[in-house]
Amino acid sequence: MEFITGSIVAPKGFTASGIHCGIRKNRSKKDLALIYAENECDAAAVYTQNKVKGAPIIVTQNHLKNGKARAVLCNSGNANTCNADGIEKADKMCALLAKQLNIAQEDIIIASTGVIGQELPIGPIRDGMATLVRFLSKTENDAAVDAIMTTDTRRKSTAVEFELGGSVCRIGGIAKGSGMINPNMATMLAFLTTDVDIDAAMLRCALMAATIDSFNMLSVDGDTSTNDMASIMASGLAGNPRITSECAEFEVFVEALRMICTYLAREMARDGEGATKLLECMVENAPDIKSARIVAKTVISSTLFKAAMFGSDANWGRVLCAVGYAPVDLDINLVNIDFESIAGRIRVCRHGTGIDFSENDATSILMRNEVKVIINLNAGESSATAWGCDLTYDYVKINSDYRT
Amino acid sequence: MEFITGSIVAPKGFTASGIHCGIRKNRSKKDLALIYAENECDAAAVYTQNKVKGAPIIVTQNHLKNGKARAVLCNSGNANTCNADGIEKADKMCALLAKQLNIAQEDIIIASTGVIGQELPIGPIRDGMATLVRFLSKTENDAAVDAIMTTDTRRKSTAVEFELGGSVCRIGGIAKGSGMINPNMATMLAFLTTDVDIDAAMLRCALMAATIDSFNMLSVDGDTSTNDMASIMASGLAGNPRITSECAEFEVFVEALRMICTYLAREMARDGEGATKLLECMVENAPDIKSARIVAKTVISSTLFKAAMFGSDANWGRVLCAVGYAPVDLDINLVNIDFESIAGRIRVCRHGTGIDFSENDATSILMRNEVKVIINLNAGESSATAWGCDLTYDYVKINSDYRT
Repeated sequence: MEFITGSIVAPKGFTASGIHCGIRKNRSKKDLALIYAENECDAAAVYTQNKVKGAPIIVTQNHLKNGKARAVLCNSGNANTCNADGIEKADKMCALLAKQLNIAQEDIIIASTGVIGQELPIGPIRDGMATLVRFLSKTENDAAVDAIMTTDTRRKSTAVEFELGGSVCRIGGIAKGSGMINPNMATMLAFLTTDVDIDAAMLRCALMAATIDSFNMLSVDGDTSTNDMASIMASGLAGNPRITSECAEFEVFVEALRMICTYLAREMARDGEGATKLLECMVENAPDIKSARIVAKTVISSTLFKAAMFGSDANWGRVLCAVGYAPVDLDINLVNIDFESIAGRIRVCRHGTGIDFSENDATSILMRNEVKVIINLNAGESSATAWGCDLTYDYVKINSDYRT
Repeated sequence: MEFITGSIVAPKGFTASGIHCGIRKNRSKKDLALIYAENECDAAAVYTQNKVKGAPIIVTQNHLKNGKARAVLCNSGNANTCNADGIEKADKMCALLAKQLNIAQEDIIIASTGVIGQELPIGPIRDGMATLVRFLSKTENDAAVDAIMTTDTRRKSTAVEFELGGSVCRIGGIAKGSGMINPNMATMLAFLTTDVDIDAAMLRCALMAATIDSFNMLSVDGDTSTNDMASIMASGLAGNPRITSECAEFEVFVEALRMICTYLAREMARDGEGATKLLECMVENAPDIKSARIVAKTVISSTLFKAAMFGSDANWGRVLCAVGYAPVDLDINLVNIDFESIAGRIRVCRHGTGIDFSENDATSILMRNEVKVIINLNAGESSATAWGCDLTYDYVKINSDYRT
């Protein structure tokens, strides 16, 4: 099982494209992306748990009821959410693409990301649709990634290769962050493709299993977006024996999917709005997996911890404080805390109490751009990891003038 | 019922003082505060719900078991929390004061605020105790406030006067914020005094009733501190008929207490770390009071909403988004949102959908230093208000180099 290039077009049967159609004023920023499957795919998705759901989410949920899809269409620059005509516009986008590709409108996974509550202009999408489809190819995957990005500063894109029953299989994925990230079911937006032959029900199970330890363990700012979605289309062209139950091949597939989702989640954390550091919180020896996840997520979401990491300040008291207000039962007097990076590892708290450590060593560890905080609860055998980023001046800057 | 001057020494029977004893290096910043009652008081307190509790919290909980107190002793500059010798040091502080005042050690409410996990130096406190007691007077209340402040930029201090059964009664209070503020039971630190005659059990009920709609509806950054506490001492010198049950006088007392706690909570929000604006979130027509509180607290805590308010950006989509992820049952299609300040009121969302509004008008409303967001759930008759502040560059600055 290894990472390969090619992203969403690495699996057999997929092409992609991305263009600037004009939803955004800035002509150098692409705003419309397409992923196309040559044949009918099994498909599944997980969605935001926010009660405010973007219109595209509602439309996609309907379209995926039969577990089939042929394309993903996604615009950036406008979330098409909380608008009176949101559903109508999302339907219109699907209709325009369906006509151009000569596929069923219900086979389209539709998504939008950007500002909430502003009417989506359909004109630019109508005008750009022919070009978008004409550009579909095995080399335009970066264009597709570029078109789904908002305040992202780097592409999140990868693929893995593995074997199932003698067949070489692939999964590819692209994602966008990078603010309003505190998914509770799915990430902001992640689109996955695979050539594995697997039915829609098992595909959905696999996606949920992979999501719980990857996208759901990610927090940039604690705000759960209205438009979060992770979708996957499976072309079945790899030639493996079709997966229809929880067989050994299913386990391998889930492992590969988790690998790719974890990679994308980490990249989203690294590129969190204004971030200078990827933060990783590992919780070890928790009484159960649920408690481990809650503690990891609580610490990675603490505003004070995030600000301390920006300042490379080994203020472990803020870590312990966050452990203390995490809604789980635990004995704070058993808790150990270490910081770690490529520069080394340092012990800062044992049994809930501070211990002597070199501030210089701590600073040199925390100054790196990937920092781990390791929390040992000494209360069991479960563990979990959450990802996030530091809180910086730039986060405030980006979010105080996003619309204007 | 009206606000008066005099703060914690306005009620009969109390004096106060504050000095720089040397816990802090900066000699111009006071770091040790004392409130003293001439006679034995009925007393009560509410505490942080963080599982990590500062040593002073644990000691105070023990001391208040009998519902009696004579003094509040509080240092800033060090939280005396997560230290191996925390309890010992808190006991020692009480012993030093008890000896100087010739009172029982168990009659002292002890509190500490500042950095977590650094050993508290007892030397400066021992050396300063005689001076602290000598300075006790009816005019040193500002010195006491100054001594409990950490990153606070302004004093939070007030008093109210009212009548009970023909007797003029007073309640005074001081408080400190201003980061790590997301109390869930009590605020960071608030010390209240009153000359009302009321037994300890009713005093505790009154404090809890006042806290739930004031300090508990306050959030600066979502981090619940380890050392939160609000305490009250009642000297009984006002001469009112002693309150021992939920009589009409008790209701008046609770109303006065709520008035003072709400004032202090608002002042803490206004002075949140780095804040440029006091934000108030009013939730109206909720199905029940609990839902109203949760929605108000969720919105006021949203990082994205806070950043938008810093930028005077009428990004109501972020408000609706936060309403959507608040853990309560509600129909998002019934929700209306308005913004309001001294410059006027503007409607921005009706029935979960954006409506046309003047961006210029919105900006002029949001540019003020007190801004309200009013959320009408159209689902019942309950309401609640939460207070917070905007997220600014200075918040990041303060918290990325707090220890260094």
